[in-house]
Amino acid sequence: MSVVMKPGASPKEMSRVLKTIRSSGLKTDTMFGEFQNVIGIIGDEKKIDLEFLGSLPGVQEVITIQVPYRLVSRSYIQHDVVVKAGDVKIGGDNPPVYIAGPCSIESYEQLHRIGKKVKEAGAQILRGGAYKPRTSIHSFQGLGITGLKHLKDVGKDLSMPTVTEIRSEFDVKTVAKYADILQIGARNMYNQDLLEACAKTKKPILFKRGFSAQIDEYLSFAERIAAHGNKQLILCERGITPLGGSFKPATRFTLDLNAVPLLKKETPFPVTADPSHGTGQRDLILPMSKASIACGAHGLMIEVHDRPEEALSDAAQALDPQELPGLIKSCNEIYRVASQ
Amino acid sequence: MSVVMKPGASPKEMSRVLKTIRSSGLKTDTMFGEFQNVIGIIGDEKKIDLEFLGSLPGVQEVITIQVPYRLVSRSYIQHDVVVKAGDVKIGGDNPPVYIAGPCSIESYEQLHRIGKKVKEAGAQILRGGAYKPRTSIHSFQGLGITGLKHLKDVGKDLSMPTVTEIRSEFDVKTVAKYADILQIGARNMYNQDLLEACAKTKKPILFKRGFSAQIDEYLSFAERIAAHGNKQLILCERGITPLGGSFKPATRFTLDLNAVPLLKKETPFPVTADPSHGTGQRDLILPMSKASIACGAHGLMIEVHDRPEEALSDAAQALDPQELPGLIKSCNEIYRVASQ
Amino acid sequence: MSVVMKPGASPKEMSRVLKTIRSSGLKTDTMFGEFQNVIGIIGDEKKIDLEFLGSLPGVQEVITIQVPYRLVSRSYIQHDVVVKAGDVKIGGDNPPVYIAGPCSIESYEQLHRIGKKVKEAGAQILRGGAYKPRTSIHSFQGLGITGLKHLKDVGKDLSMPTVTEIRSEFDVKTVAKYADILQIGARNMYNQDLLEACAKTKKPILFKRGFSAQIDEYLSFAERIAAHGNKQLILCERGITPLGGSFKPATRFTLDLNAVPLLKKETPFPVTADPSHGTGQRDLILPMSKASIACGAHGLMIEVHDRPEEALSDAAQALDPQELPGLIKSCNEIYRVASQ
Amino acid sequence: MSVVMKPGASPKEMSRVLKTIRSSGLKTDTMFGEFQNVIGIIGDEKKIDLEFLGSLPGVQEVITIQVPYRLVSRSYIQHDVVVKAGDVKIGGDNPPVYIAGPCSIESYEQLHRIGKKVKEAGAQILRGGAYKPRTSIHSFQGLGITGLKHLKDVGKDLSMPTVTEIRSEFDVKTVAKYADILQIGARNMYNQDLLEACAKTKKPILFKRGFSAQIDEYLSFAERIAAHGNKQLILCERGITPLGGSFKPATRFTLDLNAVPLLKKETPFPVTADPSHGTGQRDLILPMSKASIACGAHGLMIEVHDRPEEALSDAAQALDPQELPGLIKSCNEIYRVASQ
Repeated sequence: MSVVMKPGASPKEMSRVLKTIRSSGLKTDTMFGEFQNVIGIIGDEKKIDLEFLGSLPGVQEVITIQVPYRLVSRSYIQHDVVVKAGDVKIGGDNPPVYIAGPCSIESYEQLHRIGKKVKEAGAQILRGGAYKPRTSIHSFQGLGITGLKHLKDVGKDLSMPTVTEIRSEFDVKTVAKYADILQIGARNMYNQDLLEACAKTKKPILFKRGFSAQIDEYLSFAERIAAHGNKQLILCERGITPLGGSFKPATRFTLDLNAVPLLKKETPFPVTADPSHGTGQRDLILPMSKASIACGAHGLMIEVHDRPEEALSDAAQALDPQELPGLIKSCNEIYRVASQ
Repeated sequence: MSVVMKPGASPKEMSRVLKTIRSSGLKTDTMFGEFQNVIGIIGDEKKIDLEFLGSLPGVQEVITIQVPYRLVSRSYIQHDVVVKAGDVKIGGDNPPVYIAGPCSIESYEQLHRIGKKVKEAGAQILRGGAYKPRTSIHSFQGLGITGLKHLKDVGKDLSMPTVTEIRSEFDVKTVAKYADILQIGARNMYNQDLLEACAKTKKPILFKRGFSAQIDEYLSFAERIAAHGNKQLILCERGITPLGGSFKPATRFTLDLNAVPLLKKETPFPVTADPSHGTGQRDLILPMSKASIACGAHGLMIEVHDRPEEALSDAAQALDPQELPGLIKSCNEIYRVASQ
Repeated sequence: MSVVMKPGASPKEMSRVLKTIRSSGLKTDTMFGEFQNVIGIIGDEKKIDLEFLGSLPGVQEVITIQVPYRLVSRSYIQHDVVVKAGDVKIGGDNPPVYIAGPCSIESYEQLHRIGKKVKEAGAQILRGGAYKPRTSIHSFQGLGITGLKHLKDVGKDLSMPTVTEIRSEFDVKTVAKYADILQIGARNMYNQDLLEACAKTKKPILFKRGFSAQIDEYLSFAERIAAHGNKQLILCERGITPLGGSFKPATRFTLDLNAVPLLKKETPFPVTADPSHGTGQRDLILPMSKASIACGAHGLMIEVHDRPEEALSDAAQALDPQELPGLIKSCNEIYRVASQ
Repeated sequence: MSVVMKPGASPKEMSRVLKTIRSSGLKTDTMFGEFQNVIGIIGDEKKIDLEFLGSLPGVQEVITIQVPYRLVSRSYIQHDVVVKAGDVKIGGDNPPVYIAGPCSIESYEQLHRIGKKVKEAGAQILRGGAYKPRTSIHSFQGLGITGLKHLKDVGKDLSMPTVTEIRSEFDVKTVAKYADILQIGARNMYNQDLLEACAKTKKPILFKRGFSAQIDEYLSFAERIAAHGNKQLILCERGITPLGGSFKPATRFTLDLNAVPLLKKETPFPVTADPSHGTGQRDLILPMSKASIACGAHGLMIEVHDRPEEALSDAAQALDPQELPGLIKSCNEIYRVASQ
């Protein structure tokens, strides 16, 4: 539900509307427009007397939208949102941003070695996992805080903003100290308490789509981040699981690129794609990276490892750093012709 | 990986094996058998020298299994596990257990009123949500700790053990104080930190299958609970999302009853079904409850509300308490003939 | 679209309505009720002038339904449809019918040997494939007309009605000569020309749900059979493909039992289940058979082979004939208590 | 199974191998290579004595491959296959081919009017449906043979090769007389008898992937076409159904572009994409067309209608012909930079 104020409504009228809403136990989020202001209402809407609200002075209209998200919709935020991490800008009309690095941080040396290569190749943001979400408890689970320190150090040494995944609510504050962008992984898309805890840090959030989530559901959970006042949101398509793939050759996941134009149409936030996880196969990363940029992705997330035989996780989908310059060059050219 | 000790291996030999494993940074879980003991190894197995382990005195065999779970497998635990909550026993050869109550706890009065009816109908365990996982932030989110208090009070007043869902790691200790069984919902199946926090409370855990999780994946996450020494595990099939259902008539989810015999074959833990969430339609609850029991479910979880028009969540799938006695009677008769 | 005639509308009025519809190039299907008649309109409805039709004498109401099926809906046919094959009745309040036999007919001897056993076990209808739909051209494709002859002979010798699958439009007439019930398999659910050719034979049709078809879609194609005047329709749930199952243990298909009560609610036709194809695993057949009957299936289709090591197809899911008597006995008892 | 002959094996030796295979009731397909010949075996391989075959003079090796397809695999055909329709070449290193036209042929005038526009826009092949596969029998089903005649006439008048869908085995010969390329639609992917009937016409076949088919399954059915000696095969990704999309905004299908590089890696045949059916939404056609070309598609199939309000089918996904020149220009530029 949003309340559209009349052009020229007085601050006093505005304030009365806000007070009325909050006195029902609900929260508000105000968009100040050039001509008129819009108040977004956050929470259980059954609690509010709609008719009374519409009758208040200065109110032009009360809009009730049936979709379960609205703070992240284009009808609410009319301009493209550009998210900044250090000097890097993602979204809007900015050229594609490349986020690259190893799946897991294994040591300072390993991260710096790979980080240097991805930077030279043209990547702007460094990725690396310290807390790995893993299916099996019998696999490597990440270096934890030691990994975070390496990430911060290498990011500083190479002058690259960094991104890393958060799994536990207990780690939110720690991770926020060490990384520039907080990543919420696909397995945690529905973890609303983690989403809200991350939102409150006010850090940029790279929020991945769950692998069986419909677009509406994904945006409803993005709404939870926005509802805590965090508009530094980067969306990311990373593959869905339609076909389990009982025989070879098949991909474990299906990178659903339809999501890219759909999300861009629905929301003003930057939309990225992760062809590494989205396909799970090294030789699909290049073609699907090109396709992602061609249909409008604002950025790509690519897993890179120079010694896949030593990698502690996800070796099968790690790109050789030598292939990255070609990938970035090709994607940039596609961006140039596709965005004309 | 498990180490099978020879029959008659000495405690000293056993102790050396345990020490060897732990010195590699891994954990152990020992099953004491009638004739011989088996040591389960928990953690990243690449760290261990397999050959050396197999050469230690007293070791009969080192078994490496490729499946990502083993602490929850029948090859590891050979007898059916019976989980107790108060006087209620779930699993093994015990007759079906009925877990019933409202979706959300709305007040002491509402919970007591409905709880009394479900008890009279034959339900043994009371359910009620205090922290609701919701797709939309604009819906009712649960009463929180007030709800937990009502649950504990009503459970005590009606002499029924209770179960409620935990969403946030921060709430684990609190919920463990108020409820007899901790429920981990489908949306949190992949939330490994929550799983581990719940496991550590040593309370029985009702662990629902994620709605796009394959059986192996589900058991791999159950493994995380067992790996923290918690064998009080109740599994629960609650519907998968194969067909989104763009037209009517279709169910939002598909209760996948194949999972019941499959899980019973793979694991010794009790397997229950939730036809309320699994179908999302009131008039499918009765037939699918019967089917669940017919294919071997150890229990059912049923949402009940006597005033669905007032219900703050999930009204469309709440059963009228007047229908519960008939459902339980019919299911018990099916159990009697199906289990012969 | 259906036209409800007034009680007491004259044959002349009726005839004018029929003529009006047919002159627009559409077909009709009339249900003669106790009090009033209803005319179903078949074909592209845009061609008809709805208002004019409603204004004709004797017309009470023109009903336009948005769902893409109506001739197979309960709103159109109010009584349960019972389909007969020989002396066997399927549907309505009749006890469950068991359709059993080998996947492929391999010889007269093999079919007779297995047929005898399934009959003794309590099965009423004999199944056996002569034209096998196979994924690989490098597998056994069926005996063709030789198989059909064996089927007819064995059916006669054992006094059992028979069912076999039709794959090609060219074979419809031939198969209709040899078998009592024509089966349309899951892979052909969308093959509308085959459906229509089979419908025209006026033989009973066992019509399986496609493995990715939603309920509405399935009924829309069933509508094509009914639209050619064939109401001898037996529906069959045979498993959907939601989760490909990249690891073991998993079923290739998921028997979607929710479909059974859903279909029974929507349509008056008998609804059966095929736990053999629906699970693809021999040891799931018994529990899923019980579950099928418990939730209301009018019959079961079970693949049986006494020498699975010799079977030319589907050995992994063939039940041993020795297990069939127990399965049928158990299912009949569940039917008895579940249908009370 | 394939038999690799030694370099220099004599025609007599070759002939003996062929005879041996055929005497077991199997068929053969020979690839004549520069240095040595390979004989593909078609049919149920259990019938053949492998060891004996390997012992024949002139035989270098008998290769048994577990995958259910091989005649369409790159290991069997090592060079890219280029399919010709009139002067148009699809596949290999040829620039993208655009197949465009209305969903349904409605009249000569309509097809000519739209065909002229798509030709001017740069499309090389004309599409139009005469036999429409429709979910509902109550929708427009196509003009049939009248439509075919319009297609042939307009194709001739505009000098464009044509493609149209075949639904029924009975129509194969007729359609083959009127159209240059025979299309087998997604709903008929599993219709093996139709596939084989079409293959025998020796016409080029545009063969669409079924909407729940895995890549292996798709190629196994493509194998059936190749096994009848037809290597004029054009593959086409047209969207899968992973997420039915119960809420808006969602696409009915998901264009699975991962299939494009996967298919190109596995098979030598041209791979095209159909963003119209694959998304079902007009405003996704442009971005997904670009993405298709960027990841390597050899061509696109686009539904175009200049008066969507009059279209008898699929209006929601028909592109305005005015948008086609821009789409083709943009795709050609992406092809230029992506294929470098």
